[in-house]
Amino acid sequence: MSAQPAPITLNEISWPDYQGLDSFAKAGLFQHKGRPYHALLPQQFDRPMLDRIEALATMIRKIAKTRGGMNYLQSLLSEKRAMLYFAQPSTRTFLSFYAACQITGLHCAEVRDAHTSSEIKGESQEDSVRTFSSYFDLIIMRHPAGGFAERIAWMLSHTDRPVPVINAGSGKDQHPTQALLDVYTLQRSLEKRGGVAGKKIAFVGDLARGRTVRSLAWLLTLYEDVFMYFVAPETLQLGEDVQALLQSRKVSFTLTDDFEAVIPEVDAIYMTRIQDEWDTAHESNLIDTSKFHFEERHLKMLRPDAILMHPLPRRKEIAPEVDADPRAKYWRQVRNGMWVRTALILMMFDRDTEIDRYYHDLTRD
Amino acid sequence: MSAQPAPITLNEISWPDYQGLDSFAKAGLFQHKGRPYHALLPQQFDRPMLDRIEALATMIRKIAKTRGGMNYLQSLLSEKRAMLYFAQPSTRTFLSFYAACQITGLHCAEVRDAHTSSEIKGESQEDSVRTFSSYFDLIIMRHPAGGFAERIAWMLSHTDRPVPVINAGSGKDQHPTQALLDVYTLQRSLEKRGGVAGKKIAFVGDLARGRTVRSLAWLLTLYEDVFMYFVAPETLQLGEDVQALLQSRKVSFTLTDDFEAVIPEVDAIYMTRIQDEWDTAHESNLIDTSKFHFEERHLKMLRPDAILMHPLPRRKEIAPEVDADPRAKYWRQVRNGMWVRTALILMMFDRDTEIDRYYHDLTRD
Amino acid sequence: MSAQPAPITLNEISWPDYQGLDSFAKAGLFQHKGRPYHALLPQQFDRPMLDRIEALATMIRKIAKTRGGMNYLQSLLSEKRAMLYFAQPSTRTFLSFYAACQITGLHCAEVRDAHTSSEIKGESQEDSVRTFSSYFDLIIMRHPAGGFAERIAWMLSHTDRPVPVINAGSGKDQHPTQALLDVYTLQRSLEKRGGVAGKKIAFVGDLARGRTVRSLAWLLTLYEDVFMYFVAPETLQLGEDVQALLQSRKVSFTLTDDFEAVIPEVDAIYMTRIQDEWDTAHESNLIDTSKFHFEERHLKMLRPDAILMHPLPRRKEIAPEVDADPRAKYWRQVRNGMWVRTALILMMFDRDTEIDRYYHDLTRD
Repeated sequence: MSAQPAPITLNEISWPDYQGLDSFAKAGLFQHKGRPYHALLPQQFDRPMLDRIEALATMIRKIAKTRGGMNYLQSLLSEKRAMLYFAQPSTRTFLSFYAACQITGLHCAEVRDAHTSSEIKGESQEDSVRTFSSYFDLIIMRHPAGGFAERIAWMLSHTDRPVPVINAGSGKDQHPTQALLDVYTLQRSLEKRGGVAGKKIAFVGDLARGRTVRSLAWLLTLYEDVFMYFVAPETLQLGEDVQALLQSRKVSFTLTDDFEAVIPEVDAIYMTRIQDEWDTAHESNLIDTSKFHFEERHLKMLRPDAILMHPLPRRKEIAPEVDADPRAKYWRQVRNGMWVRTALILMMFDRDTEIDRYYHDLTRD
Repeated sequence: MSAQPAPITLNEISWPDYQGLDSFAKAGLFQHKGRPYHALLPQQFDRPMLDRIEALATMIRKIAKTRGGMNYLQSLLSEKRAMLYFAQPSTRTFLSFYAACQITGLHCAEVRDAHTSSEIKGESQEDSVRTFSSYFDLIIMRHPAGGFAERIAWMLSHTDRPVPVINAGSGKDQHPTQALLDVYTLQRSLEKRGGVAGKKIAFVGDLARGRTVRSLAWLLTLYEDVFMYFVAPETLQLGEDVQALLQSRKVSFTLTDDFEAVIPEVDAIYMTRIQDEWDTAHESNLIDTSKFHFEERHLKMLRPDAILMHPLPRRKEIAPEVDADPRAKYWRQVRNGMWVRTALILMMFDRDTEIDRYYHDLTRD
Repeated sequence: MSAQPAPITLNEISWPDYQGLDSFAKAGLFQHKGRPYHALLPQQFDRPMLDRIEALATMIRKIAKTRGGMNYLQSLLSEKRAMLYFAQPSTRTFLSFYAACQITGLHCAEVRDAHTSSEIKGESQEDSVRTFSSYFDLIIMRHPAGGFAERIAWMLSHTDRPVPVINAGSGKDQHPTQALLDVYTLQRSLEKRGGVAGKKIAFVGDLARGRTVRSLAWLLTLYEDVFMYFVAPETLQLGEDVQALLQSRKVSFTLTDDFEAVIPEVDAIYMTRIQDEWDTAHESNLIDTSKFHFEERHLKMLRPDAILMHPLPRRKEIAPEVDADPRAKYWRQVRNGMWVRTALILMMFDRDTEIDRYYHDLTRD
């Protein structure tokens, strides 16, 4: 019917060829019929898909307010099973996905510590994951090695029982669902002011190594006229690759180390933690990061309608006294993560139209 | 409408003020509309509430006997999720709560080892628990630090998403649900003789450090004319604080180290284990505790209608040959724990009246 | 009604008497009304029972293909709870049973590491398991000590709340559900050629220590005219006890170390791994096992309708290039394990006739 060549799919490409692709070309291979088959890279999400996930998350959140609504949600994927394969410890991301699965009725099993598997008997890690995946309909995966989730998705696509894979963080790579929840929090918190478009947003802290910033900065390029401030000590400033990406997308931004000058200017501040787990020789200790903390006294410098975010966990980046201020949205961010992940999973399994119908009936009454 | 000052609630009191209260005043802060909102201290339970929990546990136990009944029970809280946060290892208490949650349909997630959380990234433990709690409707918590569950309940009551907390044991503190199941076992096993009221009950073993004895002794003061024997070597006898409490409640009791003299006198014997995990210098090894063991030969000294209890785990306090005697109730105690915890959870969520209705319909047929 | 003496049951025999029985006499004690009450030894399964389990597994597999079918399956045991007690690490067997339970609706709890239990407080392991079992309706158990699952089944049969026990592998003992899934894979893969009967089957590798071979060889004696090749280096050849068993059942077999001569002769090859975890002094390193590997070049020597199996995990016994060949059935074997375990559990709980009815209605439409 079509004169176009069929798009290359993940099971038709070799691993070396795959690795030669850029993130956008890779991302195209994870889509299937306009939805994410896998969720591995933030580059998979275009603006209509972000809008759809956000609308879904909001409907789910409202449906979940009643006993009947929750029981309905739990019927949506009750016939399926998910494996949460977490080779890298992360209770918070684990629990967020676990709760999201429970909301949809997905039955979960966890594999936390790879050392309890039979890898000790000399099996390859790919054989292990392929074996475990035999029992499940979805794999949610966190791994210390960059690109591991993509490798597993590629490997399974070459078997006769491929299974969708969600990247819950791998190595220093991008962490796509964190970025989704951050965008959702921004949109929701700035909703009365028209959402993200046209806003000024500051990223503060360890911008060189934090994977959340890379992912989020990319997604924000999908909104019109966002201006970004990157506020960091020189050695932790944003990588040149991300800067180049922003320039290519014609996004206006500025780099600075003067946090207090930026606070009154912006609509949203996204604080991050010094990622000293990536240090090679405790070099983070040499940097004075106290200038990049949000202290109680900063509250009066912040616009009354601005918001303050943090992906958590925090150390000293935000003083606990700030928590009670209504502009502090980092605890809401946590819960938003659960709703966004629920929305993503339902979308991957093509059950999101059932949400539309239920919500329509609910709000008509 | 009322001239009375509104009662102080947990979110209106500072932590230092809270800590200055006695257990009874604290306990009042955990109630909400005549039910336990949190379950943290045995002092929360008055006699009507104990009677109610016992009646509920018995109804639940009977409903659970059929396939239809179990499926009904599982519908009661199927829309909710519980986190079992067990920072201190305890498979038996964990499984008892886990099974209780499953009976009510509550979806569970466990956090066993705090070291797998991002506390390693320098987050405070309170931030961790607050984050985790975001995904759940109930927290069941065991922690090595005394008062930790109360601190979390207090902390969450100051946020915009408080969640009920059940204390599943913290430090050397009281362990309220253990005491509830002990009372239930006593009442149920002595039912034909009119229940606990008017009975003679011996506590044997490590009365200085066992948290179950402290909690249970308090709850038994709510029954008329209970006489208590505290049977222990001198260095492990009941603390003066508990003795003072009993005296203030006008409870008759006696302290002794002559176990064999007590056995024929009593209606129930509650054996306990030497809690040498609290030793500071292996001092327990210096005490001859063999005189405080229940041996097979003691069976013929025991009244034919008396019962023998133990919170388990046991070491040598009760000889295995005793297990087959019908007066040995410690295995039934274990299973009673599951029913009592189920009852408590349903009561906390105000679903217990649904049990009344179902049970009424069931027994009418 | 009967002149026959009542059969001895597990709760009427002492442990020493039990231990004096041979495997067939033991196996008889685990049956109840023609079904397995416990599933502990492969000797429990006669040919009609194997045929039944295989038929059930196939029906379940087909019912599970639809959303309605899966939801139906999950209603079958939704009122029950299973404990997976895995004192020995094995993620793959654990997940297979876990998924099987989830398919039937059984609610699971896991006990992985015995060190987290209160055994540290000096409790006996039997007391621990008896306590844990109080909360559950089924125990699925893996343990490093041979005979442990049988001991627990025996111990619980002497209490007033016995619970069925499935042996998921103990010590070097037999591993009955692995053998069931192997037979199912053989039957299913050779179905068009009349199933296992009359076929030539080669076992290759570590035949002295692999528990799967012992169990499977026994079950294959229940099929007519099976010829077996045992292909191994001399020091890892099949034990004389199994050889004697085969001779007593009049099964034809041959021992050899010439793998390449056997490949073209057989209908199925069952590869196994060198079980060097049972080495006492790294003696496996002294054996050249490369002659017992299935390499890519062997594919053209294999009959076009033959199949290649492996219980996994593999090391170098099968080259990864072989995986894509349609005769390689080891990945399907993994998934068959889940279906067979589902079938076994439903049969143990007498819910298999519900499957017959549902499947009949389904295929009539």
